[in-house]
Amino acid sequence: MFRACCPIKSGRFYSSLTVKSLYEQVHRARHDSISIHGWIKSIRILKRVAFLDLQDGTSVNPLRIVVPLTTTDDAQFLKNLKTGQTLSVSNAVWQDTPNREQPFELQIKRPIDSIQLIGPVSENYPLQKKFQTLPYLRTLPTLKYRTSYLSAILRLRSFVELQFMLYFQKNHFTKVSPPILTSNDCEGAGELFQVSTNQSSTASSYFGKPTYLTVSTQLHLEILALSLSRCWTLSPCFRAERSDTPRHLSEFWMLEVEMCFVNSIQELTSFVETTMKHVINACVDNQEELLPKQFVSLQEDEASSRPSLDQEKQQIKSRWQSLVNEEWQTITYTQAIEILKKHHNQDLHFQYEPEWGQPLQTEHEKFLAGEYFKSPVFVTDYPRVCKAFYMKQNSTPNDTVACFDLLVPGMGEIIGGSLREDDYDKLCKEMKERGMNESGELDWYLSLRKEGSAPHGGFGLGFERFISYLYGNHNIRDAIPFHRTSTGSINF
Amino acid sequence: MFRACCPIKSGRFYSSLTVKSLYEQVHRARHDSISIHGWIKSIRILKRVAFLDLQDGTSVNPLRIVVPLTTTDDAQFLKNLKTGQTLSVSNAVWQDTPNREQPFELQIKRPIDSIQLIGPVSENYPLQKKFQTLPYLRTLPTLKYRTSYLSAILRLRSFVELQFMLYFQKNHFTKVSPPILTSNDCEGAGELFQVSTNQSSTASSYFGKPTYLTVSTQLHLEILALSLSRCWTLSPCFRAERSDTPRHLSEFWMLEVEMCFVNSIQELTSFVETTMKHVINACVDNQEELLPKQFVSLQEDEASSRPSLDQEKQQIKSRWQSLVNEEWQTITYTQAIEILKKHHNQDLHFQYEPEWGQPLQTEHEKFLAGEYFKSPVFVTDYPRVCKAFYMKQNSTPNDTVACFDLLVPGMGEIIGGSLREDDYDKLCKEMKERGMNESGELDWYLSLRKEGSAPHGGFGLGFERFISYLYGNHNIRDAIPFHRTSTGSINF
Repeated sequence: MFRACCPIKSGRFYSSLTVKSLYEQVHRARHDSISIHGWIKSIRILKRVAFLDLQDGTSVNPLRIVVPLTTTDDAQFLKNLKTGQTLSVSNAVWQDTPNREQPFELQIKRPIDSIQLIGPVSENYPLQKKFQTLPYLRTLPTLKYRTSYLSAILRLRSFVELQFMLYFQKNHFTKVSPPILTSNDCEGAGELFQVSTNQSSTASSYFGKPTYLTVSTQLHLEILALSLSRCWTLSPCFRAERSDTPRHLSEFWMLEVEMCFVNSIQELTSFVETTMKHVINACVDNQEELLPKQFVSLQEDEASSRPSLDQEKQQIKSRWQSLVNEEWQTITYTQAIEILKKHHNQDLHFQYEPEWGQPLQTEHEKFLAGEYFKSPVFVTDYPRVCKAFYMKQNSTPNDTVACFDLLVPGMGEIIGGSLREDDYDKLCKEMKERGMNESGELDWYLSLRKEGSAPHGGFGLGFERFISYLYGNHNIRDAIPFHRTSTGSINF
Repeated sequence: MFRACCPIKSGRFYSSLTVKSLYEQVHRARHDSISIHGWIKSIRILKRVAFLDLQDGTSVNPLRIVVPLTTTDDAQFLKNLKTGQTLSVSNAVWQDTPNREQPFELQIKRPIDSIQLIGPVSENYPLQKKFQTLPYLRTLPTLKYRTSYLSAILRLRSFVELQFMLYFQKNHFTKVSPPILTSNDCEGAGELFQVSTNQSSTASSYFGKPTYLTVSTQLHLEILALSLSRCWTLSPCFRAERSDTPRHLSEFWMLEVEMCFVNSIQELTSFVETTMKHVINACVDNQEELLPKQFVSLQEDEASSRPSLDQEKQQIKSRWQSLVNEEWQTITYTQAIEILKKHHNQDLHFQYEPEWGQPLQTEHEKFLAGEYFKSPVFVTDYPRVCKAFYMKQNSTPNDTVACFDLLVPGMGEIIGGSLREDDYDKLCKEMKERGMNESGELDWYLSLRKEGSAPHGGFGLGFERFISYLYGNHNIRDAIPFHRTSTGSINF
């Protein structure tokens, strides 16, 4: 009898096998009589044998079960099974198949005795093998992650989060949980969700003042970094933007890092590059388990010109490999504007004319990373007026701040970071110029510059953007289950 | 020159040492000339030598720096330093001190050249070594985690989260991110926070219908478990309760697990016990790094009868050890009521009389775990009417559901879990009896029982309660930075 890799205790432990655990048993000593559960992915019935592919969502690999058809009852039993049904299979025997793509099969002898239907499906079960397009699957929020293709992105996300966690732990960062409910708006962006109790009409009655959902936990992280030296979080953040694009969500998770004793933007970008490469390298090492196979039941995509899934898998693998191998570019904002201006005048026409002092638009970001450098690129030292109040002011170039955005091909910005202004007087002056802190609501933040301050900085990574980028830049809405956007209503 | 354990790249990497990295270097080959940053924890100036204890929040251990005083300038320089200031120390030399509690010291020769003050403190810097009580520290939200005692709880939390993550990954669980914004209230508890945009007066204008902050992600997790077999999350949850106790928060993080193919409540409690013991065992293995030392600068507590910190550390260690070694108890709700009734009539008087059909009160829970069993105890099979609509109904005992609460000494309930009703008709009937789903808002949830359903169950662990329990049951508000409660206003 197989055992799952969980520790087993006194017979009553939750010890059911997973498909993943069977793949982990390949090349090990094996016994017979395997019991396993899963959902029917496909059935192929030939004259004397049937092939039943099960999946259970723990692995990108399905599990092939070979069923001999010796009686007409057997054949009829198999014919009655349907895609999507939940089965419990017992008394299956392991069979090595070293020359096939799947290195083993399970064989069962008497289907009627060994296969138990534990979860039927309706006549109109929508996840049939054929005609599954991404736009169609996105209309099935309760079922779409039963496909190999979309469940793989959730497992990738889980894997990537673990890799970050291991890396930060090894480097002495403490993971912290700054608040979601806050009375400040961090960057002053103004696109806030307000919170009230359903027993009261005014937001201030519960917590004593207007309360919002956080747009960034950075200001709180600065407090913690000045206690712990290095900290990070992966927290939900909320922006009531009206942007309806494949790269915006109203509710998204942001990985934010804040660290002390960092003195230059180059130290920060170098740390980001090393961290990201470490995580992507772990993806490369596990790519066969992370990326769906060619035989996934997804036959077309929204864009008919898309490559086949097999080609796409190869492209993703190459992308990951080159992300790890190549040195990422770094340019200043001023250099970026020069490049953009040159191409705007020569061979391109941007919707927004590139001009020093103006923010980079998504079209500019995508051009720089996707077409010009064909690589992730750090753009540093933006004009002070383009960025948030807390960024450290450079002595040169004039009127710029020590910050960076990381732009990646196809997606644009996925990370923004900066050194934080630790000069109390400069920070006061900047806030005053922006009309901030008029009633002292950020005095607590200013006080950090008076009491055991330290040079510090950090960055925020849009987690769904990164996952979506790794998975092929389809749509950020596939990278989080039950996405929330300005145009979608919340059905549950 | 020392290097941090981060990979180093082309000289510009963020490679500053941490105190933790120095402790990791004990027993390894070492070189001279160490540079390090940190905050002054204490200074002791003798006639010919001064001892400077630095901390940087990466380790429970401080770093002792020995400074010879050869000139009057040296002595004056040291006398001007103050607790809480940020220093940059360079040219320090490693010195083994194998017979002392701290196995090494750093020595510097010329303090004026080697010690740089990079962050001053104000005259009234509140974190002086003496007179730090927990209630006083809690009034200093921007500074309190600079104490060894309170920073240790954040590092413990980070460590525990990593251990859960590793355990679940090894057991083929996918970590998922269900939504915080939702239109359903899960358990029908009604203590909801409502969300609106600050540009609009009605909540429905942004997402098309009233939108709330999640109280539990379970219903969404059920969708994902029926896709991935095993999933978990650690997500913020929100309850607009009026409970002002050391065990309630308005915003808290809940670790929720949902898994398929589990058929009995014993499988579930056994899985919980194994998981928790695995995590606690990792704490035991790292207890010297996780628990603050005796010489922490915390001299009294709110209760003058509290044991000294050293005694308390021993108590926590014993508690962790016995949590791992002893078998946790399991009783049914019916047995719990019998025990409570017996003691209520004999030697105790509860405020609420124990009676079958009524919920267990915190006083009952604390008695069972803390006084009767003196151990964590699973209470199973509560009356149907005491629990949520989705719990699986038992055939026997009559009118009970297949659920459990895990009660622990001093805290009461920290986990609640159940099998989920997977019989479509029973679930419909139960919802109807409770007046739920009248306009079909939970049809999506019911549909899961029609389309490839599976027996499944799960549980939710209040993360701050667990951390607080591990750390000595002080106050849940220390286990999360910037706690949100019904009585506290949100200052930032």
